[in-house]
Amino acid sequence: MPISRSNSRIIGITMGDPGGISPEVTLKALAKRNVWNKAKKGIFHTFFVCIGSPEIYEEAKRVTGARVRFNVVDCVDLAVLDEDAVNVLDIGDDVAEVIVGKVAMANAVLSYHALNVGTQLAMNGCINALVTGSINKEAVQLVLPGFTGHTEFLAEKAGVKNVKMLLQGGPLRVILVTTHVALAQVSERVNSKNVYSAIESAHRFLKKYAKIKSPKIAVCGLNPHCGEGGKIGNEESTKIMPAIKKALKENINVTGPLPADTVFYAAVKGVYDAVVVMYHDQGLGPLKTIAFDDCVNISLNLPYVRTSPAHGTAFDIAYQNIANPESMIVAIKTAIEYTQ
Amino acid sequence: MPISRSNSRIIGITMGDPGGISPEVTLKALAKRNVWNKAKKGIFHTFFVCIGSPEIYEEAKRVTGARVRFNVVDCVDLAVLDEDAVNVLDIGDDVAEVIVGKVAMANAVLSYHALNVGTQLAMNGCINALVTGSINKEAVQLVLPGFTGHTEFLAEKAGVKNVKMLLQGGPLRVILVTTHVALAQVSERVNSKNVYSAIESAHRFLKKYAKIKSPKIAVCGLNPHCGEGGKIGNEESTKIMPAIKKALKENINVTGPLPADTVFYAAVKGVYDAVVVMYHDQGLGPLKTIAFDDCVNISLNLPYVRTSPAHGTAFDIAYQNIANPESMIVAIKTAIEYTQ
Repeated sequence: MPISRSNSRIIGITMGDPGGISPEVTLKALAKRNVWNKAKKGIFHTFFVCIGSPEIYEEAKRVTGARVRFNVVDCVDLAVLDEDAVNVLDIGDDVAEVIVGKVAMANAVLSYHALNVGTQLAMNGCINALVTGSINKEAVQLVLPGFTGHTEFLAEKAGVKNVKMLLQGGPLRVILVTTHVALAQVSERVNSKNVYSAIESAHRFLKKYAKIKSPKIAVCGLNPHCGEGGKIGNEESTKIMPAIKKALKENINVTGPLPADTVFYAAVKGVYDAVVVMYHDQGLGPLKTIAFDDCVNISLNLPYVRTSPAHGTAFDIAYQNIANPESMIVAIKTAIEYTQ
Repeated sequence: MPISRSNSRIIGITMGDPGGISPEVTLKALAKRNVWNKAKKGIFHTFFVCIGSPEIYEEAKRVTGARVRFNVVDCVDLAVLDEDAVNVLDIGDDVAEVIVGKVAMANAVLSYHALNVGTQLAMNGCINALVTGSINKEAVQLVLPGFTGHTEFLAEKAGVKNVKMLLQGGPLRVILVTTHVALAQVSERVNSKNVYSAIESAHRFLKKYAKIKSPKIAVCGLNPHCGEGGKIGNEESTKIMPAIKKALKENINVTGPLPADTVFYAAVKGVYDAVVVMYHDQGLGPLKTIAFDDCVNISLNLPYVRTSPAHGTAFDIAYQNIANPESMIVAIKTAIEYTQ
């Protein structure tokens, strides 16, 4: 059967900040046999497209010694992509001013441009999944004041309000009801609406992309021991239970509220496909303890699959060939997995 | 050398609620070869003394088929204890009214009596360590209104105000600044005084009992990413940092505040001997995810070593020989380890 859009998937990977570790970990990941094995498995033809500046990828290749062959292209048409190469979509920027290892306007211009191109390609269905390389928030703010992060940016471009963060690592999937919120404000920021939305988003994502027929979703309580029946907090009955009841009515396979100190043990054993947590450390503590290196961030409710490594730009170790590509490997593999 | 108090240690184990799993897991644990191996290792003579009712232990032995030999005694004098048997200190109660699998006054009378005897023996130095079998809080409240738990009870009897909870499991030790507090109240309940006290208590305990010369102690922040420099909460600078500075001045080997989602990964790798956490799920989430079955609760600042399994009475599975003794095994082994 000839290669066509219907039997192909294109995984777009944005460059990230060219002064950080993202180009390096991307090439290290794309030099891995197991990534290619995953790509070649099954009936789909997989094309990797790095979205950024060829010169930056060349430098990253030189530093890492990654055994990859580049195919530099100007568009992502299947007719020009190479299934056995790392395709580089040249976004045409000048890299002369890039500064390694620092927050710099020149770096941000490139990383922001690559992100914009990647987003447009994903929105138009030209690529099937978007893997975003790490950027530096402060650097991007020099180009786009008020920029608060990849996820918010992608949500705005897609016109989607309830984009949720799913973190996946090892045997765990964690969905956050609140993300970067001061602990003292978490209680007031949790409500039955956003708890329900997290449950429903997880359910829909796992059905659609992970192909799980009836995903088993656990929901954490907010308080220790789920509040011990109201003795130490009552958000379980006032906010979380109503959301669970609503989800149950819609035949979502959901359980909770469950104590957050024991639910992950059960999830690791495979009792649940995903755990909805109320706040950042409640979920990321257990997750990163057992899956520090292979965590991947997945955005729910975007009109395409988006994954990203869970690490930052790590300026301090850029272009030293010491950055661990594990999270990028998992980000790419997850993008492949969810575009079957 | 003859057996004397100076080359012996007596591990007292209270019966816990006779209607729950405690007697069973105690005998299962005391039938384990590895527990006896640990007891026999080194220069100390080890005596196990179960504090409770012989009839209850007989029934637990019958149910579990545990291969133990009882030596029932009326006092814990070395002259009557048997180094190769499970000594049972008969507290002289009538067990006729005990109800299996339920909250019951008769059960509580026994468990509370055993606890009182154990506490007195520990306070008077007649036993070197106290391992407390699981009780049911509500049941004990039928006998002693206002009873809030083992730890508070032991603290009051010892006249110690700042008893801290250390949870140990697998490679992790976690010390809690706040314990059973609603999440919305955690921020106001954390202050530099109790953070310092947790650090200092951990330091002193690990030096004295774990024989670590200069224990490496990590301290978590309260907010995600430690508040990102004040952007999402500032308790790190206003409450936690002052406590750390004070501890550093006293030459305590302490680091922090560190983000709670990544510190445990480092602790698992052995970078830290203990992690001070601000609230229940921040520490117990990661801990129980990787060490669910072998968690042990240790009380800091009591005048003796006190450990206990991390589970409850599990009335629903009592006397069915299905209760997992792992946590009791670790509680007993830890008591041995910390009484060298």
